[in-house]
Parts: sequence; C-alpha cells; structure tokens
Amino acid sequence: MTVHTDPAALRPAAGPPRRGSICLVGAGPGAADLLTLRALDRIRAADVVFYDRLVDLAVLALIPLGTRRVFVGKTPGHHTWPQERIDAAIVAAALSGRRVVRLKSGDPSIFGRAAEEIAAARAHDIPVEVVPGVTAASAGAARLCQPLTERGLTERLVIATATCRPGDDWLGLADLARPGTTLALYMAMNRLPEVQDQLRRAGLPDDTPVEIIAAIETPAEARLQTTLGRLSGDGGLGHPAIIFVRIAKVAAPAPLPVQA
Amino acid sequence: MTVHTDPAALRPAAGPPRRGSICLVGAGPGAADLLTLRALDRIRAADVVFYDRLVDLAVLALIPLGTRRVFVGKTPGHHTWPQERIDAAIVAAALSGRRVVRLKSGDPSIFGRAAEEIAAARAHDIPVEVVPGVTAASAGAARLCQPLTERGLTERLVIATATCRPGDDWLGLADLARPGTTLALYMAMNRLPEVQDQLRRAGLPDDTPVEIIAAIETPAEARLQTTLGRLSGDGGLGHPAIIFVRIAKVAAPAPLPVQA
Repeated sequence: MTVHTDPAALRPAAGPPRRGSICLVGAGPGAADLLTLRALDRIRAADVVFYDRLVDLAVLALIPLGTRRVFVGKTPGHHTWPQERIDAAIVAAALSGRRVVRLKSGDPSIFGRAAEEIAAARAHDIPVEVVPGVTAASAGAARLCQPLTERGLTERLVIATATCRPGDDWLGLADLARPGTTLALYMAMNRLPEVQDQLRRAGLPDDTPVEIIAAIETPAEARLQTTLGRLSGDGGLGHPAIIFVRIAKVAAPAPLPVQA
Repeated sequence: MTVHTDPAALRPAAGPPRRGSICLVGAGPGAADLLTLRALDRIRAADVVFYDRLVDLAVLALIPLGTRRVFVGKTPGHHTWPQERIDAAIVAAALSGRRVVRLKSGDPSIFGRAAEEIAAARAHDIPVEVVPGVTAASAGAARLCQPLTERGLTERLVIATATCRPGDDWLGLADLARPGTTLALYMAMNRLPEVQDQLRRAGLPDDTPVEIIAAIETPAEARLQTTLGRLSGDGGLGHPAIIFVRIAKVAAPAPLPVQA
C-alpha cells in the first residue's frame, strides 16, 4: 500500500480535470472465469465500481483492493436503490472525474436496465461504453449441454421475463410458444402458475419437458427436469433461475419421390 | 521452438492412454478481448483447435504457436466441411487422447451446430464441455449502446435466423413481430426482401426503424440505420451482420384519476 504523507498528493493534479466515464460491464452468470478479458480490464482500471445483488462474490473478488465499491442492491431489511438513485450516483461519480464501472450480472443489454443509465450518462455528456457479457440463457444452455437452437428442431430463441411493471400484459407467451422455438424465461420463478397457464393456453401438452437451472455457475447451482404439468409446484429451486421450454418443430413429411 | 531429436519424445508416454475430451468454446463476436477467461484457458490447454471461417484472426492469434489448428470452414474455391466430417474429425482426435477445442464464433448454443457435436462426443463416451460466449446480439447492442430490452418498451428478445434447410417455413416473423419485442436476426442479409415482406405482413409500418451492424467488433465493423421500407435494398453492408428491429409497446393510457 502506498501511504501519501504529503496532503498535496491527495489533491487532484494541476491542469484540466480528468474527464470521467461510465462503463456498463456485463459480469456474466456467476463464475469469475466467465467474465470477458475486456470486462476484467475495465474493472481493474476503474476508480469506483457500482454493483448489485446478482453479481457473484467470485466476480467481486476481481475488484482491486484499493478500488471503491458501492453496493446498490437489496440487503435484508433494506430496500433496493431505486433506479433514479443509481443513475444519479454514477453520473455524480463520473462528473467528478472518476472512471465508473457499473457491474451487472449477465449481459447489460438483456434485462439490465442499461437504457436508463446510458440515457443518464448522455444527458450529462459523459462518455459511456457497454461491455457485453454472457447472458444466463447461454450459460445455462452450456451447463446443461443443451443448445438453444438445434437445426431442424428449434430455430429461434425467445428470451422473456415475468418481472414487469404492474398492470403490464407481461408475458404474452401464447404468441411466442410456437413450434421451432426455445423459450428462456428469466426472473419467472415466482410466477410459475401463470407461466404454466399461458403455455397450456398456447396448446402445449402437459408432458412438454421443462428444464430449470438456478444460480448458474455458482456453488449453489441447481437443476430440475420437470414437465409443464408439474411446473406450478416447482418453485423450490430458488432464484435467480432460467426456465427452458423447447418446442420442437413438427417434422415435415418427407417429399414424395418423383415418379419417372 | 523445441526440436525433439529423440524420436521417442514424439511417442506417447508409457502408462494408460490419456483420455481425450471435446470442448466447444464460444469465441464471442470478433475482438480477442471479448473471449471469456475460461475460453482462453481452454484454448491454451488444447492439443488441437478446430475453427471455422467466422472466428476472427484476432482470436486465432491467441492459440499457442505449438498447438495444432485445423480450419474446417470455407475458403474461396473450396467447400465447407460438411457437419458430419467435422463431427468425425473431432471425435477421432479426442479418441486418440487429445484435448480438442472446437472454437465457434459467438456462443456455441446459438446457431452453433453444437447439438450435433455434443451428440457425436456422447456417442463415443467422450467427455464434452461447452464454454458459453458473448452472442452477436449482445455484442451488437453493446456497440450501438442500444439495449435489447427496455423497461416498458421491449420486454422480450427474439433471436431468429434466415438460414434454414430448404423447404422450411423459415422465419415466421409475422408471429414474432409483436409490440414489446426486439428482433435480432442472424444470417439474414441475403434474404432482406423476405424479411421486409414478413414484417410488413405483421403490420409494421414502413417507417419502423431498423439497425444493422456487420462484422461486429472487427476492423471491418459497419453500421446502418435504415427503415423497414428501405430494407430490401440494404444488402451492401456484408456478412456476418445482425439486423435489429425494435417494436416498442404501445403506451398504455394513463389511469383515470379517481373521482372523490
């Protein structure tokens, strides 16, 4: 550790103030070695790291000891920081010349509230960068060795969530659950009866296989193979989890042989 | 470089043969620093790396000089290796005791033909692992600072492709292009007229904004902001590219004030 005995060393250097920046960094699903090299670089170069409750301890351990870290998530008995407070805090830190990293689990662009933070940065003319990360659907599929698309069976991937604003027609799964689709549902573990209901209404039979993987790439990782019919009682696996439903295409009939 | 003058050094060591393995590694979109730490670890530990044409040169430069590399993609004037030949080659290498890395652009679980290679490994009782990567939709969204979901506007992400088997009803975009959806279309640049036609039939107006980003995170990266009406003539951006269409929710009417 460097100890500055001269108070001047603690004051900003002379000259124009350094311009701060905001970097939204995807931390991936949990394991520290699923960060990208770029994410690690930005974390090491940061002056301050704002992180929330879904970022795993193994990832936080990568933040250098001397770097300020600010927890903006929920702790027992305390409320989550509202988004507006997070926006204000990262902007204030950047305006004071700091390199700000806003560390988010998974990929910042998928259910990461990135749009608000990008808008806040731009409103103050602060340079902003997004470092993409491995999203939970990719990480879960890798752990299960069960790809999200499979030639001839599932040729599209739908990532949806069950956490929306009150009053939203939140899922609309009936439209999405079409043959040839893999559904990956994020943040849906406390709404399993609604998921079950919507998928049944889409015409999926009760024996449709459903796979759930929770706490992906952490020591608490857990998996469950179930069916649509049993899904509503499967909430015990905990959060965060991804629910996979693979709706394979119906095989097309083979073309008739051409008659000579 | 180590030169083995003793031929015995080239023979396998005594004792039981080492068990080979197959690891499907996601290389991310292009830039070498968007590999995960785990991907880099597996590449460095490999005996042989099989890679195809979409893996960027910057990523290939991470393969240690002494590691055998096998190109299984298309070169001008030559055909792509058929999938069955790739399956057979990685299995043969693993059965001879080698640690095989099968390096794929993006995430192996999304349009990566991973299912076939996992099945081939399992059919021969070869240990298989998948290392997830940053998929092109995440990387493109990060480069554009344009998240894939946005609270209240787009709450689901649909990843679809236009490269299917002949005769497939390939896109089905009319079902998917619903309010609240971000569409990310992979491998669709040579089917822009069909994309335009399907999205029009889904009721999207011609002034719907469309963003295209090609060769993401490579020196050739290119971007285009266009509209659905102009889309069919926008094929000049080249491959590989992602087409983003954001179909925002219609704003819900504000609740009526409660009358006292």
